[in-house]
Amino acid sequence: MIDLRSDTVTTPTTEMREAMVEAEVGDDVFGEDPTVNNLEQKVASLFGFEAGLFVPSGTMANQLSLNVLTNQGDEVLIDKTGHIFNYESTAAAHLSSVLLKTLEGHRGKLSVELLNDNVRGTHDWDPNTKVISLENTTNKGGGCCYTEDELNEIREFADTNDLKVHLDGARLWNAMTATGTDPQFYSSIADTLSVCFSKGLGAPVGSMVLSSQKNINTARRMRKMWGGGMRQIGLLAAAADHAIEYHYPLLEEDHRRAKELARTIDNCSQLAIDIESVETNILIFDVKEGTAESVIPVLEEEGVRIVPFGPQTLRATFHFQVTDEDLEKVKATFKEQFS
Amino acid sequence: MIDLRSDTVTTPTTEMREAMVEAEVGDDVFGEDPTVNNLEQKVASLFGFEAGLFVPSGTMANQLSLNVLTNQGDEVLIDKTGHIFNYESTAAAHLSSVLLKTLEGHRGKLSVELLNDNVRGTHDWDPNTKVISLENTTNKGGGCCYTEDELNEIREFADTNDLKVHLDGARLWNAMTATGTDPQFYSSIADTLSVCFSKGLGAPVGSMVLSSQKNINTARRMRKMWGGGMRQIGLLAAAADHAIEYHYPLLEEDHRRAKELARTIDNCSQLAIDIESVETNILIFDVKEGTAESVIPVLEEEGVRIVPFGPQTLRATFHFQVTDEDLEKVKATFKEQFS
Amino acid sequence: MIDLRSDTVTTPTTEMREAMVEAEVGDDVFGEDPTVNNLEQKVASLFGFEAGLFVPSGTMANQLSLNVLTNQGDEVLIDKTGHIFNYESTAAAHLSSVLLKTLEGHRGKLSVELLNDNVRGTHDWDPNTKVISLENTTNKGGGCCYTEDELNEIREFADTNDLKVHLDGARLWNAMTATGTDPQFYSSIADTLSVCFSKGLGAPVGSMVLSSQKNINTARRMRKMWGGGMRQIGLLAAAADHAIEYHYPLLEEDHRRAKELARTIDNCSQLAIDIESVETNILIFDVKEGTAESVIPVLEEEGVRIVPFGPQTLRATFHFQVTDEDLEKVKATFKEQFS
Amino acid sequence: MIDLRSDTVTTPTTEMREAMVEAEVGDDVFGEDPTVNNLEQKVASLFGFEAGLFVPSGTMANQLSLNVLTNQGDEVLIDKTGHIFNYESTAAAHLSSVLLKTLEGHRGKLSVELLNDNVRGTHDWDPNTKVISLENTTNKGGGCCYTEDELNEIREFADTNDLKVHLDGARLWNAMTATGTDPQFYSSIADTLSVCFSKGLGAPVGSMVLSSQKNINTARRMRKMWGGGMRQIGLLAAAADHAIEYHYPLLEEDHRRAKELARTIDNCSQLAIDIESVETNILIFDVKEGTAESVIPVLEEEGVRIVPFGPQTLRATFHFQVTDEDLEKVKATFKEQFS
Repeated sequence: MIDLRSDTVTTPTTEMREAMVEAEVGDDVFGEDPTVNNLEQKVASLFGFEAGLFVPSGTMANQLSLNVLTNQGDEVLIDKTGHIFNYESTAAAHLSSVLLKTLEGHRGKLSVELLNDNVRGTHDWDPNTKVISLENTTNKGGGCCYTEDELNEIREFADTNDLKVHLDGARLWNAMTATGTDPQFYSSIADTLSVCFSKGLGAPVGSMVLSSQKNINTARRMRKMWGGGMRQIGLLAAAADHAIEYHYPLLEEDHRRAKELARTIDNCSQLAIDIESVETNILIFDVKEGTAESVIPVLEEEGVRIVPFGPQTLRATFHFQVTDEDLEKVKATFKEQFS
Repeated sequence: MIDLRSDTVTTPTTEMREAMVEAEVGDDVFGEDPTVNNLEQKVASLFGFEAGLFVPSGTMANQLSLNVLTNQGDEVLIDKTGHIFNYESTAAAHLSSVLLKTLEGHRGKLSVELLNDNVRGTHDWDPNTKVISLENTTNKGGGCCYTEDELNEIREFADTNDLKVHLDGARLWNAMTATGTDPQFYSSIADTLSVCFSKGLGAPVGSMVLSSQKNINTARRMRKMWGGGMRQIGLLAAAADHAIEYHYPLLEEDHRRAKELARTIDNCSQLAIDIESVETNILIFDVKEGTAESVIPVLEEEGVRIVPFGPQTLRATFHFQVTDEDLEKVKATFKEQFS
Repeated sequence: MIDLRSDTVTTPTTEMREAMVEAEVGDDVFGEDPTVNNLEQKVASLFGFEAGLFVPSGTMANQLSLNVLTNQGDEVLIDKTGHIFNYESTAAAHLSSVLLKTLEGHRGKLSVELLNDNVRGTHDWDPNTKVISLENTTNKGGGCCYTEDELNEIREFADTNDLKVHLDGARLWNAMTATGTDPQFYSSIADTLSVCFSKGLGAPVGSMVLSSQKNINTARRMRKMWGGGMRQIGLLAAAADHAIEYHYPLLEEDHRRAKELARTIDNCSQLAIDIESVETNILIFDVKEGTAESVIPVLEEEGVRIVPFGPQTLRATFHFQVTDEDLEKVKATFKEQFS
Repeated sequence: MIDLRSDTVTTPTTEMREAMVEAEVGDDVFGEDPTVNNLEQKVASLFGFEAGLFVPSGTMANQLSLNVLTNQGDEVLIDKTGHIFNYESTAAAHLSSVLLKTLEGHRGKLSVELLNDNVRGTHDWDPNTKVISLENTTNKGGGCCYTEDELNEIREFADTNDLKVHLDGARLWNAMTATGTDPQFYSSIADTLSVCFSKGLGAPVGSMVLSSQKNINTARRMRKMWGGGMRQIGLLAAAADHAIEYHYPLLEEDHRRAKELARTIDNCSQLAIDIESVETNILIFDVKEGTAESVIPVLEEEGVRIVPFGPQTLRATFHFQVTDEDLEKVKATFKEQFS
């Protein structure tokens, strides 16, 4: 079975497990786990931030970011397809007492035009707009990447309006692979950045929040309060480190495979795809007749799994555990079934 | 100066102040203020609810309602122009840990079509949709009223989807006046109802939340926690009671005056209005050329105050302290300036 | 019936109601109620603070104070008999995410000796001690007053340990009357002060929080969020103003009457009292045999109401609506029943 | 260096790491990790609860427990040395809006006598007492165990007063080892139980909350909201399972060693210990002269680490990575230095 449902289905490789077995560990609650400390320093340096904090999930990384950037009464602007609005329950309200104000972005991306009329906070009764929350690549937007210009413009808008910027970079590794952007660039446009070591990178567990030393100190206290302080967690940090070293370079191949499949789909008379929209490891495409749901079992029978993404829309996602051989099989299946 | 900016500008009349002076009072924190107790019983009976709770503001009435209907992790569906999303800071997040999901209603009104694809909560990471929050009349929607059919449909949708309904009835008095709906109807479609004694009714302070006895008992505890428990507050309850008895019947005249002014505006060549949209005491209209802002000082000079409501849009609001004589003056001014 | 149960049972006098009737009002949500504005300025000046905020209850005044002084993760040190720990539900936890750490003070008063070993916050898992919360006079401590020396010592301790001081001054009027302390002194020892216009002062409703302009600006926003923003509330501010002018000077008489009754009790063979402990308007005394509960109906029969305060302990409280004539009757009753 | 500072310093053994390498994993956010599912079922069955939930820390296990047992406005009774009051920041306030009311127990243990006068909640302004939170063994109480009779009495008191019982069983494994209590007993006295796989059991990370299926369903949602949902976490569950199988039986030896050292200390003329107080793996003892702090470097020089626990009090803790050989060396050091 070739699983193209999501890049979260990756499982730890033998090599990664060996790295875990050999990891030196300590009590990270006391800041004494050398493997965690090294990873935090390494990733912070990579992106040009002062400090990093290893946390058990992307949700915790995003929510700690919002928590350190906001106060009670503040509001966060976010695209309506954003992970923080759709996959993190009501954490932003519960943990930080903030409202999320959703905007109708393009493929999950915000722009200065959209933000323009949505800053409020003059009166006692106004929610006080404080943070612009971005996602790069956009998950529900089909793996879309911001350009550096777009991000610079948003940063400028934020500065002018005294706002902070959070970047949900769960798939920033894919964005950097696709755009060639220098990792250091992101600390120039974001006040807080979250990155994920599972998903395409293939570690079993773990995310990191990156920011100023002051913000990370606060985030450490809140992580403890929310129950995210873990003891000999170097084992997981070792897996994350292995993922950066050995799996991050493989993303390029995932993107190449996604584009190849896109071309095949474009040639299928029963399907429609905007080839230009395939920027990273995610493909979104339509069936011209019939429902998306009806396509699933047809492919499943041929050993291929994808997910419906709308009434006539489907999504396929590549990751390093889908090989070129798998790709050929998928392409053949699509040709056979839909041309 | 004739003040049509809002119906919140009304001030206590001499008769109302006299009613306050003569009010019998007790300590309402102990439930011993007879004037408050009578008012709570009277309004609950009027609308067919088991119990009522007198509170210092419409914000507290709305927020207590959401609080008793929800748990952490729940989500409230609301039109994006709703008072709870725009004029109550981030209270829903702060006090009840809920998210507000905004929908694009018509003149501030939701419908089953809109609600249909927006119920979620199956997965651990989903916000759990729990409440549909309605406003009647709609403030930012221009004093628009729901029909009984529309409300019955939403109630049915709520029941089918295991949702609760909150009705922000700050101006429900206007809605009842315009539609002739029996007050008892509202307890058949709403789990919690908030009504306001200031605004068009003209009491200086005070709102009420109405619901089951169980919900009101919980609301009483939360009111105390939020600092809304007041002692000899019968003075304000007396003003509210006076407002129901003597000012509620006057709303009909406010509506008549609003429609008269609408007809005048419709005859002004420089202005545009949809006469049908004037259902209660609020008028929204456009200037065909120039900006809304530029109209304000022109009218101010003539002794008339209204507010801008968009780049070319303006709002005027009637209340019982604007007389027929005032109306004639306003009409004359409009004819003179804009025909 | 002579009611010595509490000083919260006072009701508005005719003169106070007349002051309310004549009050000039405006919309205080917009900061446009002149009577409120004057009162806020007057009380802030009286105590030497930059600004004040009129709120519907002592609970809201106390909770706004804690809210502006703390962040999530902070802890408040308070005597275990304190109002904030006993009569405000779990507001401090709910509204400000802080813990209350209770200390075993003397008659409700804290001291540097007690505070000394209770400052924590070094580690991520520590609650972070941030505020010392005092009460003056102490309600459950029997109307006990801090000396200026005691308060200066606590302020010094706070400064040394980077802590803030909140003073719950619901009965500060009584403390000032008893000790002769200059009102201006309190702004030198407290970062936030709450005072109450009901209780002994006899206004029907209303408290004020006093602090720096910056803190009051934040408190205004939070007051709105908690539902405490009220519109034409000058009516209540007028009552508060009247209370300061005409009832505050009467507290001295309440204290004299309390001491007189204490001497009578001291002469009753069946009762025991520490005369020195009667510093203000509250008396706490014991029955040597039998239960406190059994005393209540005996006095009730004679037209006197007091409250049990422990298995063998009782409390009586004076206020301006208990006259000298009432006092004589109470004294006669005590002599008759308990000597 | 022989490390007796705490049982949290244990590190994963080679065998445990091998168990981790071989673990079958899946996405636990979707409930699809077989190793986690097995562990949850196994531990729930062991203690006689309907369901269990694997979480990243003891803090999260305790806080989820309080969260499912309480509502806003509720209060938790807890010994003042309890972990939840001392080592979990202000999580109970922040995440569940509850107050912690501390009682002065004996060696960290509560009793019906203590609880008796501390149930409140009748009035709107009362915190509403809802949960009795126990710790077994008590950490700061020196590893003290409740008897079954004591726990049965507290359960009965809870039932009579409509309260819930949470048991913080971070070291319940030690208590069961010392008292021989059947694990099934604990589901008869506790509504929620948290147990820990690190500490004496020696897993690197992980705790579990146990309760009814309904409570665990709610806890799952809240775990996700707080950022504790992890993906291929079976690796850590495998370590926990290994810890139960292979390290739990070793606790008996830890206790024997602790008692042996206690006898040695009892024979040291410069030290004082209550031998009866050593019930599990923790020893608390005093230096007769000089300070506890001064003892630390003396022992450190000899290769032994313990921690100060008061001005003249010290604590030593045994765990399976301290061998009999180590014990002999420690005993010799104590004899040499303090006899």
